[in-house]
Amino acid sequence: MLQSEPSKQDIIVAHERIRNQIHRTPILTSKALNSIFNCELFFKCENLQKVGAFKFRGAINAVLSLNNNDLQKGVATHSSGNHAAALALAAKFQNIPAYIVMPRTAPQIKNAAVEGYNGKIVLCEPSLQSREETLLKVVEETGSVFIHPFDNYSIIAGQATCAKEIYEDLTDLDYIITPVGGGGLLSGTCLSTKYFSANTKVIGAEPIGADDAFRSIRDGMIHPSVNPKTICDGLLTQLSNKTFTIIRNNVSEIITVEENSIKKAMRLIWERMKIIIEPSSAVTLAVILENKDRFASKRIALILSGGNVDLDNLPWLK
Amino acid sequence: MLQSEPSKQDIIVAHERIRNQIHRTPILTSKALNSIFNCELFFKCENLQKVGAFKFRGAINAVLSLNNNDLQKGVATHSSGNHAAALALAAKFQNIPAYIVMPRTAPQIKNAAVEGYNGKIVLCEPSLQSREETLLKVVEETGSVFIHPFDNYSIIAGQATCAKEIYEDLTDLDYIITPVGGGGLLSGTCLSTKYFSANTKVIGAEPIGADDAFRSIRDGMIHPSVNPKTICDGLLTQLSNKTFTIIRNNVSEIITVEENSIKKAMRLIWERMKIIIEPSSAVTLAVILENKDRFASKRIALILSGGNVDLDNLPWLK
Repeated sequence: MLQSEPSKQDIIVAHERIRNQIHRTPILTSKALNSIFNCELFFKCENLQKVGAFKFRGAINAVLSLNNNDLQKGVATHSSGNHAAALALAAKFQNIPAYIVMPRTAPQIKNAAVEGYNGKIVLCEPSLQSREETLLKVVEETGSVFIHPFDNYSIIAGQATCAKEIYEDLTDLDYIITPVGGGGLLSGTCLSTKYFSANTKVIGAEPIGADDAFRSIRDGMIHPSVNPKTICDGLLTQLSNKTFTIIRNNVSEIITVEENSIKKAMRLIWERMKIIIEPSSAVTLAVILENKDRFASKRIALILSGGNVDLDNLPWLK
Repeated sequence: MLQSEPSKQDIIVAHERIRNQIHRTPILTSKALNSIFNCELFFKCENLQKVGAFKFRGAINAVLSLNNNDLQKGVATHSSGNHAAALALAAKFQNIPAYIVMPRTAPQIKNAAVEGYNGKIVLCEPSLQSREETLLKVVEETGSVFIHPFDNYSIIAGQATCAKEIYEDLTDLDYIITPVGGGGLLSGTCLSTKYFSANTKVIGAEPIGADDAFRSIRDGMIHPSVNPKTICDGLLTQLSNKTFTIIRNNVSEIITVEENSIKKAMRLIWERMKIIIEPSSAVTLAVILENKDRFASKRIALILSGGNVDLDNLPWLK
């Protein structure tokens, strides 16, 4: 596992390491959307990645970076979202156990996803304290290695391979926009942009109801995410020390967007592109939607971070 | 316009003619679905075609096959579905008018699609008689050329290019499965299979609540589609003389499926593949779902015919 901020070489090595395990996801375009927004949009479809989210890049990189001794005892994490499913699948590929600490109150659909990849679920109470205590206990009892969802340089290097692929396929991008929750994807995108496309500006997109990253970068200190209110269930967490530092040093800007714009953008992508994205992915297009003039005539890559949606609970039906 | 059943050469010429106007849609695969059904499935994604449906292939081929004199007066059809939108866009590409006869009662979303492609809507009463009379009047008044949604050899040759692309990319397919409504796509698929992959068996997939094609092929005569009951709004029509003859001579079998299987198959594709397909597309996977043993270990191409869904009215939310 990487012990310091990933270098250019670290990201190149990570990409080589995971290349045969991940999908090289397509970059889609839509004439209809380009014409609506009067710019050139390139959608990197991590909703079509394994487990339906970019998180698999980081998880498989972290698992493949373990030494043989650590490998045998397995991995552990706390998450009920895409990182949990991604780590479970990455562990399954290596035939090692993955212990996933999840709150008792998590929806059944989340449990099913983790179990579908043979993850071993350890239930905890729905509080930060219980979650951390339970994880600590699991790690002590099993000897497994804790893989944090984003405060981990091997995870960040894995997520960085997504933007690296974009820069292999496209040149002269004016902007690259990614969602920001804990900041793993945005950190990786910042680093790959610095190394592989230094003239491209990196923008983090965040729901206005969960704008802790925006405030953290503005104020130069990590603000906690307190009672976030957004349909973007992947963007509820706050930055960590590692992601805060990388983002602060490299991001061009964090732009916040309204919930209505997120719903509108999500529906536009479903209707016009016929692909399924989760609300967290839609913040990227919502940034364009709210700032049409500013992005006119620009070439912009948007990372669609995932496609795991509860089809019984679509935002426009609430 | 073709005046007889498309030959191999006719389909090759049609493909050359439309190649630069259509999307060469991707063929997607899913390890998850292959493992659930224990066979190799190849999904030809016409939901990602222009206007979100295979219908654009036929419409653009028909429009590009008109002579200069006919071209100027435009085209006309009766349809409230994908053919209407496809013909409107094909006409727009050639900068000629498209007159679309639609019942007053058609949902607003259908009007909007046609208007979005500059189609000229002519309203009629919601009866077969009014529809035909109105169309006749439009054709007389404007001198435009009636392009039937499927009882037209140029349309059929256009739809045939879809299977042709599949056979260019894949060999040794045991089966190819397409939905059957009026039979344009199935006819084209039958012909391309005969010409380009003679060992592949062609199966038409039909909702049991709209099984007129099944009965027509079984009985050797065209049965009308009377009060069809299915969520597959693209599969309500009956076969025509031209499609009946081609299908009867070439199809291996028509298989009917339950509504529940269609809903299940649709949701499976949304959830596992993260792409949006309309119910009519899902009949193909429903055939596999209801006949798992029969298709075990086979290599099967499924044509996902379209992706135009009312996102406010999803089948599993009713």
